[in-house]
Amino acid sequence: MPDYRVVIEYDGRGMVGWQRQKKGVSVQQSIEEALFKFCGEEIRIQGAGRTDAGVHALGQVANFSLQSLHKPHVVMNAVNYHLKPTSVVIISCEETDPEFNARFSATGRHYLYRIINRTAPLTVDYGLAWQFKRPLDHDAMHESAQLLVGRHDFTSFRAVACQAKSPLRTLEKLEVKRVGDEIQIGTSAQSFLHNQVRSMVGSLSLIGTGQWQKEDLLKALDAKDRQAAGPNAPPYGLYLIAVDYER
Amino acid sequence: MPDYRVVIEYDGRGMVGWQRQKKGVSVQQSIEEALFKFCGEEIRIQGAGRTDAGVHALGQVANFSLQSLHKPHVVMNAVNYHLKPTSVVIISCEETDPEFNARFSATGRHYLYRIINRTAPLTVDYGLAWQFKRPLDHDAMHESAQLLVGRHDFTSFRAVACQAKSPLRTLEKLEVKRVGDEIQIGTSAQSFLHNQVRSMVGSLSLIGTGQWQKEDLLKALDAKDRQAAGPNAPPYGLYLIAVDYER
Repeated sequence: MPDYRVVIEYDGRGMVGWQRQKKGVSVQQSIEEALFKFCGEEIRIQGAGRTDAGVHALGQVANFSLQSLHKPHVVMNAVNYHLKPTSVVIISCEETDPEFNARFSATGRHYLYRIINRTAPLTVDYGLAWQFKRPLDHDAMHESAQLLVGRHDFTSFRAVACQAKSPLRTLEKLEVKRVGDEIQIGTSAQSFLHNQVRSMVGSLSLIGTGQWQKEDLLKALDAKDRQAAGPNAPPYGLYLIAVDYER
Repeated sequence: MPDYRVVIEYDGRGMVGWQRQKKGVSVQQSIEEALFKFCGEEIRIQGAGRTDAGVHALGQVANFSLQSLHKPHVVMNAVNYHLKPTSVVIISCEETDPEFNARFSATGRHYLYRIINRTAPLTVDYGLAWQFKRPLDHDAMHESAQLLVGRHDFTSFRAVACQAKSPLRTLEKLEVKRVGDEIQIGTSAQSFLHNQVRSMVGSLSLIGTGQWQKEDLLKALDAKDRQAAGPNAPPYGLYLIAVDYER
């Protein structure tokens, strides 16, 4: 029974997120149905990150087993053929060992959050970034962001519905930089809590406008209370860009 | 009678291009109608580049006069309000002198062409880049591209319908670089012929696959015949990114 590891890209607009839901089409379901059309097997795939509705991915990773052996590029091309006309594609596929689990073997997850900081509405980036009208001080955001780096109890930055057993996470990186009108927030950790990136970005936006000072962010973290942090930034600015595994 | 200079961004998908057409909605028409809704005046705007259907712009420039005086940010916000829900926005607006003409005062035009070089179909970049499946040698493309830089008769690289009096143009820059799967072709000139960028990119793609050698590109240029050059690259990979003016 061959095992495959795939890297998946998707446009989250119009999708209910990674996981199968009663209402609407999920990324997981799209791929599982395409696999069924390809080989007639009812496959369950395991993804590295359970992204929310509207969140995009440039490098989601998943694994699955098939009953029959096919060359990886055949699997990829066939699944992509059957995925049309959805907004999901497999961008690479390789055989892997049966122990590999996209979710539990992951040693790092990397997200990018895109803010377009301007008063004019978005055109080419519509649905692909968060338009933020008030001027944001990206240096202040970056400086404050460093307070969240390291091992902390991120209860204030997790969804109430978050199913993780522990609110402790080690944030490896939280970097804010500006490229013209665009503010890019890059963040890395072995794993994140549900809504953690979006709530961190929402809180950093309060720093950016000057509504919050550095101390307010620290107070929010220390409160260990979801109400203490800023609102979630919208999902459509968020991209799962890569997942790391040990060689 | 105040004169305004605006920078315009648009998503070319679903638009018939810059210029008014009998069929479909043009960028020019969208803005002129929004101006009419704002101030009740029937304005004709002059754009720096008459982009084709499907071509995008991040920094198109246009000018127009109004009968009544309004602060530039009021004009911009009102027009953007009336442009909804189209894919066109004004990203900056300033008063200018009456001699300024977005088309004839331009001293430089900068275009970017985006190719995503991979076998998987596009998701987030669908309609925003050219998906090219066969591997492209970007170094060979860049090296050959330098043959086109300088002052040449670009008859082989202009649309048959091109209305310019002379086929002579001075190409200031034609640079090809790769960022991961993406090949970015940046080009600059005071002005371009109709379809010049797309036909240069189409020809460079033949170099990239190895179908053409450097000499073939030179032969195409020397032929002064549209049939001698490669096919036009599709419009949706092309962006007008900026227009220069003397101080």
